[in-house]
Amino acid sequence: MTSLNPQPYTFSQRAQKITSSTIREILKVTERPEIISFAGGLPAPKGFPIDIIYAAYEKVLNHNGKAALQYGPTEGYRPLREWVAQDLKRVGAHDVNVDQVLIVSGSQQALDLLGKLFIDPGSKVLVEAPSYLGALQSFSLYEPNYVAVPTDDKGLIPEGLTDDRVAHARFIYALPNFQNPTGRTLNLERRKALVKRCAEANLPIIEDDPYGDLRYAGEPLPGLLGLGREVGATVIRLGSFSKVLAPGLRLGYIVAPEAIIAKLVQIKQATDLHTATLTQMAVYETIHEGFLNFHLPAVREIYKEQCGYMLEAMQEFFPASAKWTRPEGGMFIWVTLPEHIDAYELLSRAIKKHVAFVPGEPFYAGAEPVRNTLRLSFVTVSKERIREGIEILGRLIAESAVSKAA
Amino acid sequence: MTSLNPQPYTFSQRAQKITSSTIREILKVTERPEIISFAGGLPAPKGFPIDIIYAAYEKVLNHNGKAALQYGPTEGYRPLREWVAQDLKRVGAHDVNVDQVLIVSGSQQALDLLGKLFIDPGSKVLVEAPSYLGALQSFSLYEPNYVAVPTDDKGLIPEGLTDDRVAHARFIYALPNFQNPTGRTLNLERRKALVKRCAEANLPIIEDDPYGDLRYAGEPLPGLLGLGREVGATVIRLGSFSKVLAPGLRLGYIVAPEAIIAKLVQIKQATDLHTATLTQMAVYETIHEGFLNFHLPAVREIYKEQCGYMLEAMQEFFPASAKWTRPEGGMFIWVTLPEHIDAYELLSRAIKKHVAFVPGEPFYAGAEPVRNTLRLSFVTVSKERIREGIEILGRLIAESAVSKAA
Repeated sequence: MTSLNPQPYTFSQRAQKITSSTIREILKVTERPEIISFAGGLPAPKGFPIDIIYAAYEKVLNHNGKAALQYGPTEGYRPLREWVAQDLKRVGAHDVNVDQVLIVSGSQQALDLLGKLFIDPGSKVLVEAPSYLGALQSFSLYEPNYVAVPTDDKGLIPEGLTDDRVAHARFIYALPNFQNPTGRTLNLERRKALVKRCAEANLPIIEDDPYGDLRYAGEPLPGLLGLGREVGATVIRLGSFSKVLAPGLRLGYIVAPEAIIAKLVQIKQATDLHTATLTQMAVYETIHEGFLNFHLPAVREIYKEQCGYMLEAMQEFFPASAKWTRPEGGMFIWVTLPEHIDAYELLSRAIKKHVAFVPGEPFYAGAEPVRNTLRLSFVTVSKERIREGIEILGRLIAESAVSKAA
Repeated sequence: MTSLNPQPYTFSQRAQKITSSTIREILKVTERPEIISFAGGLPAPKGFPIDIIYAAYEKVLNHNGKAALQYGPTEGYRPLREWVAQDLKRVGAHDVNVDQVLIVSGSQQALDLLGKLFIDPGSKVLVEAPSYLGALQSFSLYEPNYVAVPTDDKGLIPEGLTDDRVAHARFIYALPNFQNPTGRTLNLERRKALVKRCAEANLPIIEDDPYGDLRYAGEPLPGLLGLGREVGATVIRLGSFSKVLAPGLRLGYIVAPEAIIAKLVQIKQATDLHTATLTQMAVYETIHEGFLNFHLPAVREIYKEQCGYMLEAMQEFFPASAKWTRPEGGMFIWVTLPEHIDAYELLSRAIKKHVAFVPGEPFYAGAEPVRNTLRLSFVTVSKERIREGIEILGRLIAESAVSKAA
């Protein structure tokens, strides 16, 4: 026997650094049916237009089956790309052409492709604190150096983009609408200040907007893509069909300047050749005659109702010492507890009472994590169980406050 | 204006190194309908079981629509994983359990995930010379140092795995059945020698087998996975539904020891969360009652016939100075021209005569490329156009030979 290699296999440095995600571990617990889970991020299945999607698959397979089942171009199905380019007018981007659109296998894949495109080990990457955990995990595979941009109760603070933070940063990653995890929305003034600063500083913006169509309060605001183009900022916009149709399709898109899309196409070709042809054709068939105009109001109504149930219950059962956000859309409420309460410790007591949520700590990168925060998702739990779960949580928070006082 | 960053954006080192693939550029030319293209790698659409696939989507969406359209586990749809584990008995792997199976979005994604898992910049990676170009492109994003293992007309030479080559290599990537690009098949003796050597040397094997079910001549051979497990080798097997059902679905799988799958699951979660639930459920519905037992013989017949047309025409029209492989399955024939003929130069003359193929040069990594080789795909061209195209190619090759002599 030789021993040319000391072990049966050796993982890359990046793979060795990955640890199991906290949320993943929590979600395993929450699969037990007795648990009232505010931990998940699943969209409401009653919003999935199953019949319409089925009719689209029927049409595509019966009329165009051979093309739908064959390999396709890496860029994506051209009619769907054209639809996306047109649809962006709704968020104030009027000049997008088809060559600026790349179809991807869910917007999580967009994050991976952008990590490949922009991040070398040690590259500075700016993120909101807190930010979407899935993006942090995705970018982390390319070993960036995260630097947090400060936020307040209105979200990201554009003045936080100091020369020091911006210099040599590869991009800033931002979620302007109903941010995951906080539910906060960036107002128009801050949007304008952000794109202006980024244009001046040659700082590309990745605008992730999976929830934008789920606005159920307040007025729609123009996206960073349109605003950015007016002032010469490089904005890369990520969109998703997960929340407006269904996440199990795994379909999303990237909109960016052509030179960036061209490079992303090469990267995507090496990554998975292309996104499923059948899925792209069926989604195009589902939406191209305006179905979303009818569908989205119904979906928003579901989310609005669910959000209302939770806010009402929080008002009733949470102690005054806890603060929380009131989202204008999306799926999440962010809670800030009295400083001495550790959300992990609260979680372990909550799970004993069959309630689950996600502590805020893992959402922080490039900044001191804040341990007295947590994220609640209200989308897939019934009204009754929301009340029951929030009542339990409220009692546990109050007990923590008391035990500290005692 | 500040100028904190000199340019609007800065790409990563890896992204800067990507160049447009030669095949991609050639394929653009071949989209013109007048071109007889032997360049592509598309499966035959007449082998796609459209009606059966449609019936599966119908059943899944109508009976289980909410689950099919919701997020799912990163590992994949459990019944499909179980099917894969069972199905591997056909290639001699009898002890595979469900936790050793990860469903991926086409086997190109498997290559990307394995690149992430195993390759640091500069890591030694062993490949056949020539090897599958898509794998080379995928791994290259992780900046390996390729080292070629010698091959002859029977494929990879196990004795080529010298101590020097094997030391500190992260893995060897091999396609034992009807290799892309050569069409060669590794015989049983070499398979056994390969897994034995890899077990001794702690060298993981990535066994890529997209074409294994497309055998239309000779006897089926056990895969490296089963043979490897008998001698303690670490074998990671990649499988695909692209050739047995349809590539437009983008569905494949990885089989590996549990510790490797567990890490790949974490990586895949960061990469695209999971593969489309609906696709997985529909494919499971398509195949779980044994459909492939009926379907595969018909598909093999298509490929056998097509391969026969091309071999027959080559026999008739190619000059004696050209040599070529006679595949027992799969999609490709590999041609070795007289040494002085450059396949790129031949291609530019062939395109003027409306015939296209892929020169062999880009398939070589970690070795001196051989410029007098080329790959022919026979799958999607009609018998008449195969004869016409091969006659033209034969004449052009003969002219090259003459012009050299003159």
